[in-house]
Amino acid sequence: MMNKKEIIAAIIIIGNEVLSGRTKDINTSTISIWLNSLGIKVKEVRTIPDDEKIIIDTVNELRKKFNYVFTTGGIGPTHDDITAESISKAFNLEYGFQKEAYSILENYYKPGEFTEGRQKMAKMPTTANLILNPSSGAPGFYVENVFSFPGVPSILKSMIGSLNNVLVGGEPILSKTLNLRTVESEIAKSLSDVQNQNQEVEIGSYPFFKAGKLGVSIVLRSTNQSKIDQCNDQILKFLKLKDIEILKEV
Amino acid sequence: MMNKKEIIAAIIIIGNEVLSGRTKDINTSTISIWLNSLGIKVKEVRTIPDDEKIIIDTVNELRKKFNYVFTTGGIGPTHDDITAESISKAFNLEYGFQKEAYSILENYYKPGEFTEGRQKMAKMPTTANLILNPSSGAPGFYVENVFSFPGVPSILKSMIGSLNNVLVGGEPILSKTLNLRTVESEIAKSLSDVQNQNQEVEIGSYPFFKAGKLGVSIVLRSTNQSKIDQCNDQILKFLKLKDIEILKEV
Repeated sequence: MMNKKEIIAAIIIIGNEVLSGRTKDINTSTISIWLNSLGIKVKEVRTIPDDEKIIIDTVNELRKKFNYVFTTGGIGPTHDDITAESISKAFNLEYGFQKEAYSILENYYKPGEFTEGRQKMAKMPTTANLILNPSSGAPGFYVENVFSFPGVPSILKSMIGSLNNVLVGGEPILSKTLNLRTVESEIAKSLSDVQNQNQEVEIGSYPFFKAGKLGVSIVLRSTNQSKIDQCNDQILKFLKLKDIEILKEV
Repeated sequence: MMNKKEIIAAIIIIGNEVLSGRTKDINTSTISIWLNSLGIKVKEVRTIPDDEKIIIDTVNELRKKFNYVFTTGGIGPTHDDITAESISKAFNLEYGFQKEAYSILENYYKPGEFTEGRQKMAKMPTTANLILNPSSGAPGFYVENVFSFPGVPSILKSMIGSLNNVLVGGEPILSKTLNLRTVESEIAKSLSDVQNQNQEVEIGSYPFFKAGKLGVSIVLRSTNQSKIDQCNDQILKFLKLKDIEILKEV
């Protein structure tokens, strides 16, 4: 399914709150859907603790393996926010005030309210580039191919768009979904035949339960619309033969 | 924060549908909360594609680093369900019908309905132990310290309890949460002092937005209730001094 134009990315979720089960990660979905639209495919997500050595090792491992790495979490003002310092160490760069970030935050707060705690949010690799934050002032940053966002989903979501002209993507990844009233074992053999005949389309099959009823979503993904269409035609053919109801096509 | 009794685990989420952003992972939260109650701490989660080599390499890397590894997804009947075969290869074990699983499924379906597609769900390392599935028949399985669950959240949830007597845990991980009407920078310095004085308690600070209002959750985690209480007392003290409102204590 790999092709030479494929641009691949990894996401690093930094946060004990996700590992403890307290918080469900929704940033992966936001970042992946956004990257798909730019033709960048997320191939790995790692959730790791707020631990300096683990952050450094993970960033250094993944930035070599992937075109882009995105981190979420750990760039706020409290003691457990150690992402910016860890990334400085990973790149062997000085950690300190990034001047532009300092001045953004100084302007953002009322005179006298730019406290020590808040100043910490201007600390990062001093040579980092900023990712502007239209929601709450404190910017994210990037160094080479590693991009660091905050963990709060609504803030992250407001920031990603500013990178559309920074990232170099490939062909957008297109998809088509068929929701069926069936069970997987009913279509497994036929679907497998279609996959074998259409290697350039990634075919996924996902059972679901909605309103107490069983169903299966078939998802076709490719950068090539006509290959998706061809695949879809073959699937429609066997669905008709088996008399399987299509609940929804997207 | 590490202590010698700490039992640690990793979760491997196998599924293109999570990497594409289509599906938000909620199994991590289910597994982590369950493991916490058994005194097992999740220290890493990896989300990887339905790719045999990546599954094998990831399982083999993590089963050496962690006491337990849990996989989710990829054990159904369709062509993209390759977890059972990949894990057989990771352990260098024969992949084929596990007799008990075969007979469970044979009894589960009506005569004539135990089709080839469904039979695939009885295929796994032939010497694997089963994880019984009270929801939909098809069992999960485990080999040594690697446990494989299906990806459908409601089915996974119905299966975990059967392992309570199989897993050997440590001291249960206790927690206390304080939801505050404040911003992180207001409490960063004081909270950092409390963390420095209470190394055996992991203190997390998480901003939230609810009903349009800003707040911060402070989460204290430890296996020792009296250490949590001591920490909590110190936090209550500085909250009173700063006149910060407590919205909720859990």
